[in-house]
Amino acid sequence: MPLLTLLTDFGLDDWYVAAVKGVVLRSASGAQIVDISHQVPPGDVETAAFLLAAPFPTFPPGTVHLAVVDPGVGSDRRLLAARTHDASWLVAPDNGLLTCLLPEVDSLRSVERTDLFLSGPGRTFHGRDRFAPIAAALLRGEPWDSLGPVIGDPVRLAIAPPRREPGLLTGRVAHVDRYGNLVTDLPWSWLPAGPCRVEVASHTTASHATDRRVTHYAEIPPGEAAFLPGSLATVELSMNGENLACRWHVGRGARVQIATHFSPQATMKPVRG
Amino acid sequence: MPLLTLLTDFGLDDWYVAAVKGVVLRSASGAQIVDISHQVPPGDVETAAFLLAAPFPTFPPGTVHLAVVDPGVGSDRRLLAARTHDASWLVAPDNGLLTCLLPEVDSLRSVERTDLFLSGPGRTFHGRDRFAPIAAALLRGEPWDSLGPVIGDPVRLAIAPPRREPGLLTGRVAHVDRYGNLVTDLPWSWLPAGPCRVEVASHTTASHATDRRVTHYAEIPPGEAAFLPGSLATVELSMNGENLACRWHVGRGARVQIATHFSPQATMKPVRG
Amino acid sequence: MPLLTLLTDFGLDDWYVAAVKGVVLRSASGAQIVDISHQVPPGDVETAAFLLAAPFPTFPPGTVHLAVVDPGVGSDRRLLAARTHDASWLVAPDNGLLTCLLPEVDSLRSVERTDLFLSGPGRTFHGRDRFAPIAAALLRGEPWDSLGPVIGDPVRLAIAPPRREPGLLTGRVAHVDRYGNLVTDLPWSWLPAGPCRVEVASHTTASHATDRRVTHYAEIPPGEAAFLPGSLATVELSMNGENLACRWHVGRGARVQIATHFSPQATMKPVRG
Repeated sequence: MPLLTLLTDFGLDDWYVAAVKGVVLRSASGAQIVDISHQVPPGDVETAAFLLAAPFPTFPPGTVHLAVVDPGVGSDRRLLAARTHDASWLVAPDNGLLTCLLPEVDSLRSVERTDLFLSGPGRTFHGRDRFAPIAAALLRGEPWDSLGPVIGDPVRLAIAPPRREPGLLTGRVAHVDRYGNLVTDLPWSWLPAGPCRVEVASHTTASHATDRRVTHYAEIPPGEAAFLPGSLATVELSMNGENLACRWHVGRGARVQIATHFSPQATMKPVRG
Repeated sequence: MPLLTLLTDFGLDDWYVAAVKGVVLRSASGAQIVDISHQVPPGDVETAAFLLAAPFPTFPPGTVHLAVVDPGVGSDRRLLAARTHDASWLVAPDNGLLTCLLPEVDSLRSVERTDLFLSGPGRTFHGRDRFAPIAAALLRGEPWDSLGPVIGDPVRLAIAPPRREPGLLTGRVAHVDRYGNLVTDLPWSWLPAGPCRVEVASHTTASHATDRRVTHYAEIPPGEAAFLPGSLATVELSMNGENLACRWHVGRGARVQIATHFSPQATMKPVRG
Repeated sequence: MPLLTLLTDFGLDDWYVAAVKGVVLRSASGAQIVDISHQVPPGDVETAAFLLAAPFPTFPPGTVHLAVVDPGVGSDRRLLAARTHDASWLVAPDNGLLTCLLPEVDSLRSVERTDLFLSGPGRTFHGRDRFAPIAAALLRGEPWDSLGPVIGDPVRLAIAPPRREPGLLTGRVAHVDRYGNLVTDLPWSWLPAGPCRVEVASHTTASHATDRRVTHYAEIPPGEAAFLPGSLATVELSMNGENLACRWHVGRGARVQIATHFSPQATMKPVRG
């Protein structure tokens, strides 16, 4: 049975998600649909790019992943479809939404099969009128070559990659989850075995730091922050049963620095700068 | 595979939606279920009527649409089932919830098959005890004639239809979506090609207007409002990347007037009355 | 087709729910998944225990119920699987989450099949790495005996059961729903036919009471509170179209007392203490 995942900023109060699913099921009967989220902040392509990529490896080959966060709907921005190395499929507007998954992409096309599209009404709901029919075509096994020309210049979000210097790793908070965990973009494998000090700072807050390394949340002493290997193999900062993002007043984009030659004798406790 | 859509005011924090699905799947094994929304404000039949009708055309014939927003649960209000012209099915309490879809209805019955119903406990959860079994019966292909007597007097919501006079269209904001778009009930096809001025006012706010006509959101200049053909073929008012409903402080039910003989030379800019 | 229900505190904004589903569908292709809720307050095992048990009886035998509210993730707390009397399955961390369903359990095992588990990354997401594979194994029909040793000492939440004395029933608010109904743990069958006075009090609020007994919400006079048999066969306190929990400022855990020898002549009206 073909599998479709769905990621949008349509919210859960409205009829938009159902309309997309109705169109898909009308022409790809029996497809199984899994929601990733529909709570992406309106128009927030960067959050969507993260949420699309994070669960991607868990889905079986052949899955079609449809993502519609599309402030340019109705303009001349392209509609993209991609085949990945594991023979899965991605469908999204050409606005950077695929950025985090481009390393997985084997072939990328600009979909121009107007015969697939529904004719409105309006130009405000391509999720229903264009993206859902494209996803349905892939679910039905429509030939990949037929969808449109191969392209090589998708829009990419300008997200600076993490940096690795002697004694210092520099990255950012890539995501804050419901528990207030700060998920960074710094690979856990970059950390040496010895003591490290992880410091987080944003434009609007003082910097906060911790040198406590743990393996799971329940190991963190009450009221303290610690860092641990997160579920995406990156450095994560957390508290135990409390919301660290609220406590430290930091969110996505905050700068993260890790001193890897840190001497714990000098400053044993987290420092509030 | 039979398809069921589900629309309720049960919310997403509770066990009520799952109980309805459990009962359906217990007696209509393999049915595919698509949520429309469970976030209808408690008891808000008018919102539910809109949300039920809007995605209806996207679903394939044969779909069963179950809607449970039912402040009269346990009283003697009737339980309705309807067959539509495209051989789909509607199931809802008789409280106006079907109002927007009555033009699609081919046959309407008051369901009185007590043999289908679960016997409580209590009279507070007919979603589980009566509506889910009715939906499951339709999914299983139970004979339509057997469900109960044909009726011709369903409860209808008193929603004034839009009016069309020379030089003036009068309607209302039928819906506000997550982006703050004001979806009106005025058919886009009523608009003449020439300049128009769209004015929105409610009891509690000053009136706001725009004479800017666009085809999609990205075409709207920052900070301005415009009108465009929406995804239900009606006039929609929007901003680009901002929430117009918040900006203008208007919500569902606000009056919308469109001056169709509007001379743009006289008042080029939106007027805050 | 095997059926899986899913209950977590992962929220609806994030990728965690999708990752669990992806892992399940990767190895139990075609399984049908029904969400109970993902909005359990972070780490609130007691709410989860209630939400897992309430819809349980509606699902068909053979269903796998997976619940992941797991503040101890990554520690040495056990991973439990249970077979119920109706041949359904439960999967959850050993932290009390199964408390309300233990009377349904026929056989309980500590799952130690490390060959099933995914190897990280990290120890923070056993929903993806361990619980989803266990659920998938049960959906595939993996032999029950093979999962791990039988145990008899699951963690149980310390929830005092309701008490029944001559003239007085004492229990608690077990749940507050979206409508503000106060769902108590007092069996409706304990109530005598005569007049009763139901009183609710918490540490932080004055006590409130009602002696009005009804059968459904629409029967309650505007602005008043009443009690009625709820959808779990317990005493429920409600208003008609208003939120009683907000009105009385009471929540889960508030004490409920029912005077069953109450003489309505003495105090006809609800008393605010």
